[in-house]
Amino acid sequence: MKWDLLLGLSAAFFTTFAFMPQAIKTIKTQNTQGISMLMYLMFTTGVVLWAIYGFVRHDAAVFLANVTVFLFAFPVLLVILKNYYALSRQKKKKEQ
Amino acid sequence: MKWDLLLGLSAAFFTTFAFMPQAIKTIKTQNTQGISMLMYLMFTTGVVLWAIYGFVRHDAAVFLANVTVFLFAFPVLLVILKNYYALSRQKKKKEQ
Repeated sequence: MKWDLLLGLSAAFFTTFAFMPQAIKTIKTQNTQGISMLMYLMFTTGVVLWAIYGFVRHDAAVFLANVTVFLFAFPVLLVILKNYYALSRQKKKKEQ
Repeated sequence: MKWDLLLGLSAAFFTTFAFMPQAIKTIKTQNTQGISMLMYLMFTTGVVLWAIYGFVRHDAAVFLANVTVFLFAFPVLLVILKNYYALSRQKKKKEQ
């Protein structure tokens, strides 16, 4: 294996599986304070577009890497949205 | 421009600039509750490896995209580490 392939694979490993500890932490604690909702909206959109790109270009590496990242990032986005709407409802109740 | 190139560029735009709102939010609020330190350690490592990979392979797109993401992700990691050490010091003081 050439060393630059090993470098690329290590890079791919880190940027893909970096999203696993965040998913575990968010699912466990349900705490999304400090996390940017816009980041996860943009990022999840981007990851879906990358997966479609990999699919239409028959690029298995791009497709599979982005499906994996999606599986970690999407649950985090769901918890962020859940907390956001819960907070919105609380604010409305207080205003009434 | 072929439509699959446009798809790839849109995907790259979203996954790159997704990290900007997180950087702005974290720098403004200094609140990193809910953010996984391990995620940012792994992610920043991966992004640096991708940038080196782009550099040695003379791939300007991979190099520039990852330098951009690094500029957004690294300040977030610094604030996370700053808060982590501040909390560790507080805990030590309480124990004394």
